Amino acid sequence: MTVATGQCCAPIAREPLSETDAAELAVLLKAVADPVRLRLLSMIGSHSGGEACVCDLTDAFNLTAPTISHHLKVLRTAGLIDCERRGTWVYYWIIPAAVARLGALFTPLAEPATT
Amino acid sequence: MTVATGQCCAPIAREPLSETDAAELAVLLKAVADPVRLRLLSMIGSHSGGEACVCDLTDAFNLTAPTISHHLKVLRTAGLIDCERRGTWVYYWIIPAAVARLGALFTPLAEPATT
Repeated sequence: MTVATGQCCAPIAREPLSETDAAELAVLLKAVADPVRLRLLSMIGSHSGGEACVCDLTDAFNLTAPTISHHLKVLRTAGLIDCERRGTWVYYWIIPAAVARLGALFTPLAEPATT
Repeated sequence: MTVATGQCCAPIAREPLSETDAAELAVLLKAVADPVRLRLLSMIGSHSGGEACVCDLTDAFNLTAPTISHHLKVLRTAGLIDCERRGTWVYYWIIPAAVARLGALFTPLAEPATT
């Protein structure tokens, strides 16, 4: 009678998350749950040298600099990116451990069973 | 002069996301960016047989049944879970491909470089 499509093997489906873990992960996920912030994250990470000048990021969007700054601040507050000012510009880079924490939550450990 | 912590090798950091991909992924991420929904997803996936009765899910939270139903509907609308009514109760299961899509976005393809 079961119509389950097989057990999903990602860690999120291995055991119930604790309230604490769920609260922490929701903060990270809220930070990336936005199209502009996802694109910013991918632009920063894929930029030559693994870091990007805020000037490059702003030019890629049809958004004002304050709006881009707001989104970058959300990502930074969540611990997904960090930055440093050098002269005129601020440079951003991804914090790999934070990205990996999200990946570890959703990545299947084995192929899902097919039924 | 660089202080980058090495390139992050997750797909999100390999190349800039397109606007379309970012929009689709943001919908999935918004659905899971909530502590209750993360816990529901983990309870459903880790339940015996890979599916859970709504009665088991409701009992685990100090929330009303309509609130739990709302959260389940958000997960279902995003395509992360599906359900079927059997007699009195509705049974939920995870859609592994949707979870795997999130995992693929954030999972490093190799260990991040350490500096």
